[in-house]
Amino acid sequence: MEARPGQPAVVLLSGGLDSATTLAIAVDQGFQAHALSVDYGQRHRAELAAAARLAVALGAASHRVVRVDLRAIGGSALTADLPVPVNRDAPSMAAEIPITYVPARNTVLLALALGLAETLAAFDLFIGVNAVDYSGYPDCRPEFIAAFERLANLATQAGVESRGVFRIHAPLLHWSKEAIIRAGLRLGVDYGMTVSCYQADETGRACGQCDACLLRRAGFAAAGVTDPTRYVI
Amino acid sequence: MEARPGQPAVVLLSGGLDSATTLAIAVDQGFQAHALSVDYGQRHRAELAAAARLAVALGAASHRVVRVDLRAIGGSALTADLPVPVNRDAPSMAAEIPITYVPARNTVLLALALGLAETLAAFDLFIGVNAVDYSGYPDCRPEFIAAFERLANLATQAGVESRGVFRIHAPLLHWSKEAIIRAGLRLGVDYGMTVSCYQADETGRACGQCDACLLRRAGFAAAGVTDPTRYVI
Repeated sequence: MEARPGQPAVVLLSGGLDSATTLAIAVDQGFQAHALSVDYGQRHRAELAAAARLAVALGAASHRVVRVDLRAIGGSALTADLPVPVNRDAPSMAAEIPITYVPARNTVLLALALGLAETLAAFDLFIGVNAVDYSGYPDCRPEFIAAFERLANLATQAGVESRGVFRIHAPLLHWSKEAIIRAGLRLGVDYGMTVSCYQADETGRACGQCDACLLRRAGFAAAGVTDPTRYVI
Repeated sequence: MEARPGQPAVVLLSGGLDSATTLAIAVDQGFQAHALSVDYGQRHRAELAAAARLAVALGAASHRVVRVDLRAIGGSALTADLPVPVNRDAPSMAAEIPITYVPARNTVLLALALGLAETLAAFDLFIGVNAVDYSGYPDCRPEFIAAFERLANLATQAGVESRGVFRIHAPLLHWSKEAIIRAGLRLGVDYGMTVSCYQADETGRACGQCDACLLRRAGFAAAGVTDPTRYVI
């Protein structure tokens, strides 16, 4: 999708590797990038602290944290009292959907981003979803992104009045983790500031065992660059 | 849309007249109705207390409150420190969208309802939107509901695995306020328990002046029944 230099955009920023790269891409494309983090009661709160530092480091125009208590809904190891699966032989490329899936998460995240976009008169939303490494999540697929883009243009005052056309940018959608890391490094992302681990400790130290850690490690290895992550193991 | 007796459904319940009627309809259709209220930092918190009482009175199978702090996003008189418009000559049937519009509200509400539906293995979502009395809100239109239904079937594990088809039920969509009140009274809804006012006081007493109060008063008058609302004026 084309850049719209100087235009405001909303960038979903979890504090992980993918969303940090996405923010760097939005800024590189010339957008005035307003970062939005969602505190949905996740276990890995170190991500939110990382998000705040990344927003500054990567040149975001602003950073907001919206609280949504998904714990009242439950259904995922990330927000409920279920064990996070660890120590599997390979990252979860399997057909089944991992239990770390949060019900309707990307739908909720994009809905909140859309609300902020309306307030800021922005028409560009960025989300760091990836259909390659996380093929198990239904809301990381191109058809989901396309359906949300269509919804956004029907759901909003600005869309109805044709003051602009909402675009959902998912620049990482078809990239491998290796390609994401290479792109981010070219744009100056300090991946030592990002937190991917599903159960990072309060200082941001990663478990080294969960699916997110395994994917991240494999990505740095494939890219042939040093992994700056602080792992417990 | 056809009923699915005994099946679980998620019903968005604000505590207002429309959502109470919608819950009564879902229960009447034989659904096991799980009510979901969203505390999005709204001014009219009396609505949430009313929702809890209505869930019990109308026979909901459960009631949950999810907190979402939309104040971080702003943009509406309902959640920000802007005056609520009062004392207009007529309800807001005008072309312009009222400033009580909450950015992307129904998108956020339906996203949360979808998350709960996944957790409960429900495929039926009920929302009390109405395109007649609130024509100014883009996310109260039939095309918005249809687009969300499409999204729901792409966004979810259950949709992808074809374990069922999500339906967004908006039974009040084309009804007048008068028709809504008549239907609710037939189903035994005690409208004295509902709160519609944008700025109700803590006891649920309505201002009698905002758009929601004017629409409600006109609806009871048109239905030819006594308005049980406790108004300040």
